[in-house]
Amino acid sequence: MLPAIEDELQRTVARLDEPRLRPFYDMLTYHMGWTGEGAGPEARGKRIRPLLVLLTTASAGGKWEDALPAAAAVELIHNFSLVHDDIQDASDLRRGRTTVWKKWDMPQAINVGDVLFILAHLATLDTRIKYPAEIALQAGQIVQEACLGLSSGQFLDISYEKRANLTIEDYWPMVSGKTAALLAGCTRVGALLGGADQPAQDAYRNFGHFLGLAFQVQDDFLGIWGDSALTGKSTESDLTTGKKSLPVLYGLEKKGAFASRWSAGPVAENEVRALAEQLASEGAKLYTQEVADQMTDRALENLRAADPRGKPGEALFELTQMLLDRQA
Amino acid sequence: MLPAIEDELQRTVARLDEPRLRPFYDMLTYHMGWTGEGAGPEARGKRIRPLLVLLTTASAGGKWEDALPAAAAVELIHNFSLVHDDIQDASDLRRGRTTVWKKWDMPQAINVGDVLFILAHLATLDTRIKYPAEIALQAGQIVQEACLGLSSGQFLDISYEKRANLTIEDYWPMVSGKTAALLAGCTRVGALLGGADQPAQDAYRNFGHFLGLAFQVQDDFLGIWGDSALTGKSTESDLTTGKKSLPVLYGLEKKGAFASRWSAGPVAENEVRALAEQLASEGAKLYTQEVADQMTDRALENLRAADPRGKPGEALFELTQMLLDRQA
Repeated sequence: MLPAIEDELQRTVARLDEPRLRPFYDMLTYHMGWTGEGAGPEARGKRIRPLLVLLTTASAGGKWEDALPAAAAVELIHNFSLVHDDIQDASDLRRGRTTVWKKWDMPQAINVGDVLFILAHLATLDTRIKYPAEIALQAGQIVQEACLGLSSGQFLDISYEKRANLTIEDYWPMVSGKTAALLAGCTRVGALLGGADQPAQDAYRNFGHFLGLAFQVQDDFLGIWGDSALTGKSTESDLTTGKKSLPVLYGLEKKGAFASRWSAGPVAENEVRALAEQLASEGAKLYTQEVADQMTDRALENLRAADPRGKPGEALFELTQMLLDRQA
Repeated sequence: MLPAIEDELQRTVARLDEPRLRPFYDMLTYHMGWTGEGAGPEARGKRIRPLLVLLTTASAGGKWEDALPAAAAVELIHNFSLVHDDIQDASDLRRGRTTVWKKWDMPQAINVGDVLFILAHLATLDTRIKYPAEIALQAGQIVQEACLGLSSGQFLDISYEKRANLTIEDYWPMVSGKTAALLAGCTRVGALLGGADQPAQDAYRNFGHFLGLAFQVQDDFLGIWGDSALTGKSTESDLTTGKKSLPVLYGLEKKGAFASRWSAGPVAENEVRALAEQLASEGAKLYTQEVADQMTDRALENLRAADPRGKPGEALFELTQMLLDRQA
């Protein structure tokens, strides 16, 4: 499926391939990992979202090829959000390469994000080539609602940076939007296009939602106790970046030694190991692992309820395991 | 029609009105001119784009009320582009009020623009409430293609800031995208929803396109020879901001005294009157006025060809006159 996804993405982005817009087109193909320094599979990410769409479509009994425009759409939406996110977070690197705003400045980077978003909507509209108009409109509605969740989650994420009194209760609406909304949109649209009935559509949607939550909690776990977070080798620890992840919110609610140190100001790299141990000793490590396991169980429960068929169904279970078993 | 437009806009934006997202919702309603310091009709702009949609729908024989979701969509798209444009240009003021990025910082302002865009697409999808699914999809396609033009024009505009060797030939693709694409989208979608046949749809589309070009050329004229540009009272002259407008490109091609002064560096406020006269003496004022008249003629020609009916048809001619006769 991956080469077909890449083809569909390139076909969609090629709408901008005209002489006068060449530098703009180059920015898009750079970000998508096709051109420029460091281009290649590593620069493209795992294309998990379009895979989820296609596997869901096939598992629900549809032809995955027919869902390719929707698959391209969700990947373009993901990439639109990454380009804007990198500006908002002032990140220099994305998938090991210079970010778009760092390379071409903020004004054009805003524009690159915007146009990826527009191309995503044009791809969604292409759903009507293989499906009745009513289904294409429903697909559009699902995609837009996912975007609304994404954007609301992004608002909360940014606003949390300045808020001191956050609790675990604040965590769920943020990650439900920022991480889970688009994944739930992927499985929901895939189920629709695969011809699933309403209960199966709901089960697939919930599978995507809890997969997103499990993925994010796992990410938060690794951001503090993962190998590379502890050694500082390839990624920074969430303790130095000040990210208000689930274990940190847990620690802040405990109001113990961790909370005191956190509130006292930025954490230096040489404090990371000891502070991660302190946080674990206050119960945050066990708690985070338990929550990740719960969310994973609920994802798998819903996937089983959706009753996915054949090899694509098996692949959905495998993809879930792969995403949640990762150690870095 | 204006109160109905305002109602529809508020109904659409209210999708974000939930307790947790209240500050986000407040940013949107502030930008839309409904709340906050300086709220009121002045802060809302003229809502020309939704008016164009509704008047076109009615002129083509449809019920304008049915086109309200599409009208809200184009106004939200316009406002999305303004919010991002203000960040890109680092503008402090919009319609006499502090811009969103200046008030809530750049990261949230990017997000405000993004969510206005998403709300616009959700409004477009609401077209299906009153129209068959196939028409709703066509409306979506028209809106997205207009956005693609808008974004491409924005790319060219930003890239021109750094280019020295621009000619008048470079001007048209930029304004065709940045100004005319959305206006053409307004009249095109209005004609579709009004039930116009294909030749009338094309004529309405071309009317919107040339109206946009005429409007922009007129704007460029006023930016140098308008009262407030010359006196510096309420707006700056395009000569001090360095905007590469049509008269400036004309002057640069002449390679005369104007071009020499322009290339020597920023123009001070006390030079504006003399430089505007110099540019006029090289033929740019007459040329710009002629081009504005030509574009106006072509807009009116196409509007006549569309054969708009009744009072809404008359209102389209009046709106065109009002837009193009303005002196500031």
